Amino acid sequence: MASCVVGCLQQCFSPSALRSYLAEFISTFLFVFATAGSAISARMLTPDSTSSDASSLVATAVAQAFALFVAVFIAADASGGHANPAVTFAFAICGHIAVLPAVLYCAAQLLGATFACLVVHILSAGQAVPTTRIAVDMTGFGASVLEAAATFMVVYTVHAACDPRRVRAGGGRSAAETATGSLAIGLVTGACALATGSLTGASMNPARSFGPAVVSGDFRNQAVYWAGPMVGAALAAIVHQHVMYPASLRPGSVETVVV
Amino acid sequence: MASCVVGCLQQCFSPSALRSYLAEFISTFLFVFATAGSAISARMLTPDSTSSDASSLVATAVAQAFALFVAVFIAADASGGHANPAVTFAFAICGHIAVLPAVLYCAAQLLGATFACLVVHILSAGQAVPTTRIAVDMTGFGASVLEAAATFMVVYTVHAACDPRRVRAGGGRSAAETATGSLAIGLVTGACALATGSLTGASMNPARSFGPAVVSGDFRNQAVYWAGPMVGAALAAIVHQHVMYPASLRPGSVETVVV
Amino acid sequence: MASCVVGCLQQCFSPSALRSYLAEFISTFLFVFATAGSAISARMLTPDSTSSDASSLVATAVAQAFALFVAVFIAADASGGHANPAVTFAFAICGHIAVLPAVLYCAAQLLGATFACLVVHILSAGQAVPTTRIAVDMTGFGASVLEAAATFMVVYTVHAACDPRRVRAGGGRSAAETATGSLAIGLVTGACALATGSLTGASMNPARSFGPAVVSGDFRNQAVYWAGPMVGAALAAIVHQHVMYPASLRPGSVETVVV
Amino acid sequence: MASCVVGCLQQCFSPSALRSYLAEFISTFLFVFATAGSAISARMLTPDSTSSDASSLVATAVAQAFALFVAVFIAADASGGHANPAVTFAFAICGHIAVLPAVLYCAAQLLGATFACLVVHILSAGQAVPTTRIAVDMTGFGASVLEAAATFMVVYTVHAACDPRRVRAGGGRSAAETATGSLAIGLVTGACALATGSLTGASMNPARSFGPAVVSGDFRNQAVYWAGPMVGAALAAIVHQHVMYPASLRPGSVETVVV
Repeated sequence: MASCVVGCLQQCFSPSALRSYLAEFISTFLFVFATAGSAISARMLTPDSTSSDASSLVATAVAQAFALFVAVFIAADASGGHANPAVTFAFAICGHIAVLPAVLYCAAQLLGATFACLVVHILSAGQAVPTTRIAVDMTGFGASVLEAAATFMVVYTVHAACDPRRVRAGGGRSAAETATGSLAIGLVTGACALATGSLTGASMNPARSFGPAVVSGDFRNQAVYWAGPMVGAALAAIVHQHVMYPASLRPGSVETVVV
Repeated sequence: MASCVVGCLQQCFSPSALRSYLAEFISTFLFVFATAGSAISARMLTPDSTSSDASSLVATAVAQAFALFVAVFIAADASGGHANPAVTFAFAICGHIAVLPAVLYCAAQLLGATFACLVVHILSAGQAVPTTRIAVDMTGFGASVLEAAATFMVVYTVHAACDPRRVRAGGGRSAAETATGSLAIGLVTGACALATGSLTGASMNPARSFGPAVVSGDFRNQAVYWAGPMVGAALAAIVHQHVMYPASLRPGSVETVVV
Repeated sequence: MASCVVGCLQQCFSPSALRSYLAEFISTFLFVFATAGSAISARMLTPDSTSSDASSLVATAVAQAFALFVAVFIAADASGGHANPAVTFAFAICGHIAVLPAVLYCAAQLLGATFACLVVHILSAGQAVPTTRIAVDMTGFGASVLEAAATFMVVYTVHAACDPRRVRAGGGRSAAETATGSLAIGLVTGACALATGSLTGASMNPARSFGPAVVSGDFRNQAVYWAGPMVGAALAAIVHQHVMYPASLRPGSVETVVV
Repeated sequence: MASCVVGCLQQCFSPSALRSYLAEFISTFLFVFATAGSAISARMLTPDSTSSDASSLVATAVAQAFALFVAVFIAADASGGHANPAVTFAFAICGHIAVLPAVLYCAAQLLGATFACLVVHILSAGQAVPTTRIAVDMTGFGASVLEAAATFMVVYTVHAACDPRRVRAGGGRSAAETATGSLAIGLVTGACALATGSLTGASMNPARSFGPAVVSGDFRNQAVYWAGPMVGAALAAIVHQHVMYPASLRPGSVETVVV
């Protein structure tokens, strides 16, 4: 029993595992740096609220899309490129990642997101880091469901992009396959950010909401940005793994897939 | 005779067929969710009509481009990734899909589009879902032809991306080929959405016009958004399959092609 | 002699050659349809000139980028995907395409561009098709050189994307290679359109300037939009083929390459 | 000793080396042409500063993203496609390029950037070429660290995209792999440009700041745009090469990696 715990801990803190946490830290830093930074840069260009228009929505959505594509791409070999606690949760409930590494992945992601917000906040001479906010008339429940719907799309795309049936026979994905899969994950996030930007702030990622909350000290609606994405991600994983591509359809279906 | 009908129905409701309908439902949901959502999010940022500008056009066109890329990509293995009754119609008239599955594909697409609009409408606390509208001076006929021209481009690209001559010898497309083909389909839709956005509302997809119409109860000009795309899609299929790449040029026919 | 002319004409009007002209017609139609349409759609959203901003520049540049990517992609197998007389000229001076087919390519491109402008003009109930214009203070010579610089970049990218040294050993390009090369050609056009949009109207393509000129009857500065791109394209072809990748570096360098 | 110097110089000025400098010149010209040009084109569309908004941020960031993607892609075979002294510096400190060629790479990049700014400035009839500027409240130190953070992301992506472990077994990268890696490098630059555009002017590239400084004669804050990117690039190279993918993990080392 004790040796089992020791072995498990050893695996969780092996050089390769530590590298994967660092990769998640860097990727989430990149994603939240681009998201928070672009919101600040767009706001600084809009002198007053009456002249606001959809171009700041485009700026932040494009920044999210491009940054997440690259965040997934650069970490794909080391950690799988989650950059999102909801994605890690989805892989955990399907058994693709054990509980302890999943917790450490999430910790690395939350640290990366918070550090990114701190860097942007301090270096920009105190610009307020925008938190994800719910539109005036909407309820917390409505926002949660909308976040769940958007996150469903993102996490379903993650599963489709990692689908082992798409991997070429020789084993392993080519760099082009990793890149195009990452591009799909990034751009679906951009599309959903454009769709929900004015409604829920387009989080789809608890780390992306947690970082600005820590730095600004404003934890309002955190429950929305944890519950919504987690439920959506879990649903996406279940629909993809048990309905769309059940184990019986997979090559070498006797053994479970290690993504 | 009866056994033939039974066999046909069995095939149409086999697990794999049901999966393809679900894939079409999810993909069309994603596309219409992003399209309707981005139109609402952009509108919420424009305080009054005098300050309107082209940034809302960019927001919705980019949302459509990114979302359709991913919608086609995630459903490619399960259903072919149509997400558009006009695309299904084009494949049907070329014999690539039988009539009954094609009808069920379209039903899944219309359901997905309507469900997406409902979700956005209800969760956004009653924001009106924008329907596709024709510019003031234009006639319904002019709008139909413009929709047909734009849909021609989209469906021609679908055929070019699926062209079996591009598939590598070993059979089956690699994930990178599926992704780049899907990207072309998504981005041509974005380009045509930018081109026709202020003129016809840039539908190119009967489901994309049907969903908002059901939710808003405003069925004006539905005929335009069905006739135009269907005619354009049919023309694209005929030009591609019978003029550009006639059967005699395809591998498996007597004369092999040297590109 | 006579039989040589007959043979040459037969080759120029063979089914496969006719298909390539049709492919150029469709691709150039798509590119100019998106370019002219997006300019009109963006203008319709800008109520008066004092509220103009960079979002219309983004709209037209993104439309050009996405449309040219797809225009090159869908015609790649049939005609090489030029969609631009300057590209055809560049291939002609390097001997990759004979004079007569090159002239017929250009004719198809000019027809496609003009037809696209006619379709947009008539169906939009008479919206003026914007011609490419030179900024107030600039000279025609300055605009020509700027167009030449931008076209140099586009045509150099075309040559880099078609570089036979990048093609895999087995012969022929995979669909993913065609698509990523086309993407580079499309996006460099988008980047140069953003760079020169307010200065020269960002043509980089005589057909793109010719179509609106025919439909609007305004042929001012046509010389700029023919001379500039042609010179830039020729320079790009010479630099790429004779300086960067001289024949001695190419695999199987004894024989000339057929792109 | 003398013969060693001669041999080294011969290698540095061999035809293939000269070609790589020319490739760097062209690529950096393209990147800075698009960056400076899009800033000018966007500014010309904004009649007065009170109506400024985020669309000019989007225009310049998208121009940078698209242009850098293509700049890296077209030079990949000839020079590796740096187009940035910070990238060359990062490769130099890891020993992937010798000191003398690295210096000549940087010279070619600075020449290309300056020439691009000159071309835009002169041909646009004297439009001021915008230099990268620091936001009013920020310190030079803050701007340097922000530039370092953004450049870290770009150079880390460069290393991830060039990672030899991703290259297929047969040796050499396919065109699709080169293109998707270049796309990641371009789009991460776009994301970071959106994030830091209003704060530091989003340089991430000493050449991109040097060119406008030479042409405008305004060398303020040059230190920021050299120190920041260089430190960030060096850090990224060290983290990637010594922490994330240490030599012991690479193919050709004793222990093979199973990804």
